[in-house]
Amino acid sequence: MTMEKGMSSGERLPSRSSQVSAAKITAKELETKQSHKEKLGGFVLVHAGAGYHSESKAKEYKHVCKRACQKAIEKLQAGALATDAVTAALVELEDSPFTNAGMGSNLNLLGEIECDASIMDGKSLNFGAVGALSGIKNPVSVANRLLCEGQKGKLSAGRIPPCFLVGEGAYRWAVDHGIPSCPPNIMTTRFSLAAFKRNKRKLELAERVETDFIQLKKRRQSSEKREGREELETSTLICALTRQAQGFEPATSVLQVNALSTMPPQENDAGTLDTVGAVVVDHEGNVAAAVSSGGLALKHPGRVGQAALYGCGCWAENTRVHSPYSTAVSTSGCGEHLVRTILARECSHALQSEDAHQALLETMQNKFIGSPFLASEDGVLGGVIVLRSCRCSSEPDSAQNKQTLLVEFLWSHTTESMCVGYMSAQDGKAKTHISRLPPGAVAGQSVAIEGGVCRLESPAN
Amino acid sequence: MTMEKGMSSGERLPSRSSQVSAAKITAKELETKQSHKEKLGGFVLVHAGAGYHSESKAKEYKHVCKRACQKAIEKLQAGALATDAVTAALVELEDSPFTNAGMGSNLNLLGEIECDASIMDGKSLNFGAVGALSGIKNPVSVANRLLCEGQKGKLSAGRIPPCFLVGEGAYRWAVDHGIPSCPPNIMTTRFSLAAFKRNKRKLELAERVETDFIQLKKRRQSSEKREGREELETSTLICALTRQAQGFEPATSVLQVNALSTMPPQENDAGTLDTVGAVVVDHEGNVAAAVSSGGLALKHPGRVGQAALYGCGCWAENTRVHSPYSTAVSTSGCGEHLVRTILARECSHALQSEDAHQALLETMQNKFIGSPFLASEDGVLGGVIVLRSCRCSSEPDSAQNKQTLLVEFLWSHTTESMCVGYMSAQDGKAKTHISRLPPGAVAGQSVAIEGGVCRLESPAN
Repeated sequence: MTMEKGMSSGERLPSRSSQVSAAKITAKELETKQSHKEKLGGFVLVHAGAGYHSESKAKEYKHVCKRACQKAIEKLQAGALATDAVTAALVELEDSPFTNAGMGSNLNLLGEIECDASIMDGKSLNFGAVGALSGIKNPVSVANRLLCEGQKGKLSAGRIPPCFLVGEGAYRWAVDHGIPSCPPNIMTTRFSLAAFKRNKRKLELAERVETDFIQLKKRRQSSEKREGREELETSTLICALTRQAQGFEPATSVLQVNALSTMPPQENDAGTLDTVGAVVVDHEGNVAAAVSSGGLALKHPGRVGQAALYGCGCWAENTRVHSPYSTAVSTSGCGEHLVRTILARECSHALQSEDAHQALLETMQNKFIGSPFLASEDGVLGGVIVLRSCRCSSEPDSAQNKQTLLVEFLWSHTTESMCVGYMSAQDGKAKTHISRLPPGAVAGQSVAIEGGVCRLESPAN
Repeated sequence: MTMEKGMSSGERLPSRSSQVSAAKITAKELETKQSHKEKLGGFVLVHAGAGYHSESKAKEYKHVCKRACQKAIEKLQAGALATDAVTAALVELEDSPFTNAGMGSNLNLLGEIECDASIMDGKSLNFGAVGALSGIKNPVSVANRLLCEGQKGKLSAGRIPPCFLVGEGAYRWAVDHGIPSCPPNIMTTRFSLAAFKRNKRKLELAERVETDFIQLKKRRQSSEKREGREELETSTLICALTRQAQGFEPATSVLQVNALSTMPPQENDAGTLDTVGAVVVDHEGNVAAAVSSGGLALKHPGRVGQAALYGCGCWAENTRVHSPYSTAVSTSGCGEHLVRTILARECSHALQSEDAHQALLETMQNKFIGSPFLASEDGVLGGVIVLRSCRCSSEPDSAQNKQTLLVEFLWSHTTESMCVGYMSAQDGKAKTHISRLPPGAVAGQSVAIEGGVCRLESPAN
């Protein structure tokens, strides 16, 4: 803990997103900055969701990613645990009204906020998670507290401490452990309420159109039977119904209502972005990962997505025998797709192979888009941020006897876009980026992947 | 669906439970019975928990396993889906007041029943789960309904159907889908209430002893500081406290209260057994798996265990390219241990290697007891039932041109005991067995494993 560390920050690579292959990591490794020798090192990578980030809001998304990175780095520099640093990043992301986590989360069918969050510690391999949690401003804090309490060992009378709590029970546990409650009206923002009302109208219209369609079809079939005519084409019926749906939205709504969960959102549509998350590595090479989500817009109350589920929302594993790399992963996107592919753990395992970039690309292509578990899906929507680190000997021409912690970091997504930020302890400020699929690539069928490398240097033990 | 099937049932192997190795499957394969040609074939394996099954209740445990097998086979013979057959078995297991699932489940800290259950379909790879669900007699029915609804595709306005619901939201969804609610007092049995009261008393005593211990230790330390004496040994303090604890249970309680969740239960202690589950294969080779649990005794409200979690409670995958075997798995035991090892999926993957018995044994030893994710645990408690099937050519000397579906089934546990039952569609009745660790083996550190083979024969396509 008293070792002196220096870190060179990695440069983000130019985007080479592609459906088949992507840019090989050749990030420029900057010289070690020695200006903050007294502070401890570390690295953080965050995301503000894989989904669709409008150009007009790009500034806000980047800004919150930047602040989240700074919070995590402050913790790492002060010698905090990797789990506390990753929690600090998540709290910042949850507190933003622009992300779909904590404050400003998507509202469910009843207009309520129910959050999922989880955290994993690469050193102890402990895990904490909450699902469908209401009334707590920072769900990740409860997940982190569950992880911490779990590390203390058994409860009174030898009871096994819980690692996953949901609903009212999770809320009670949080309050009993000193985490303050938060009135629901404070967590609902102007944007999330507007998105809820708009989505509710679309849903009502969709349900009315669907009901009318079924009835009209029945009437036409009955009439055709009598008159011996051919059955009308579906498109003709929809046109007829769209004309009927006066008083609702215009004809284009018929298309819009069929894609509420996957279509690019309107401006100010805060409700359509997804999960936020972060991965960190501290100056000793310990990794941690966390994730937090308000879930899908208009989800059924009680629905729990990947952000709360072990192996699906986040993963962190320190290096050990037969695992040369420490790895940390956080996922985002359509919860059901990420759950059924157990994507966080899948990525973590893949990252033990030599070429991190190739391993992640193949995982996204073969274990996510091409997964037999999602064979019936039209498009597979998600994104991941990953980092892996390993100790390696310092450069031969180095005058000082130093050990190097090499950190490779990547982000990859099949959604239209993904907003990320990253920062090393020696950087004055975080770098942020909105990664987008290249023109012509189809969301749900194509993979974008980018990343970089940074280096933590320290005297030999 | 109209093919004529015959099935030979497998004989259970004699127990060769062992800490290091176990019996190789060489089950006697009986001759095909042709007496029920008109009925469809299939096979089911169920369990009534890995934990501790007292000799005095062996009859009840075996009886409910038998009935569960019969229910599943009736469904398979009638041509039902594998998921409906496995649900039928689970409903029977849940309805028993002797199992810790559905009726008679463990009560939580507040004296309430909150159930977890999940189901997976090997054909569609769909999954349905509920967590911390109250007020529904058969949680597995809700999980199965979620799976069925999920298979219908998107909801109105393109919303993605949920596959995992918890708490109040899960209850509302169930009732909205026509599943009747059940008053809590009906699900609480005389046994579960007695176990709750007994455990509550132990907990209160443990907490009082712990509080007193801390206070006494502080006083002694303070007094030693003044008098310059050595610190008293913990054992001396506990003895002193045990004498103090008049009005509570006798001294032995000091030991008992430290093992509420892992110690063998008293007679009639319905609250200490675990999860129930089943795996089936139908006449076409489709597999399904399900699991249901009332969770740990005196768990925190909202705690969700492995029975609700994807990859942890159950797994089912039909054969496909690069996966020669269809596999189905259901787990039982300490939820937190099964979650952190994602044991159901781990077993399923291992079962693709040639020797099923060896693969399962190695998985239980290396990926469960020896898992780095459970390195800090004193003992690792769990059990699994698995089956795998594959089509193979009929015997060369067979006069008829038949195809054979070979079904291998196994159970393995690290707990004191595990109660299982199994049956083929051609059997007149189910076979049941309480598997126990061999004398001298230590629960949580040793593996018992047994199994058998059966054969489904059918005319070539």
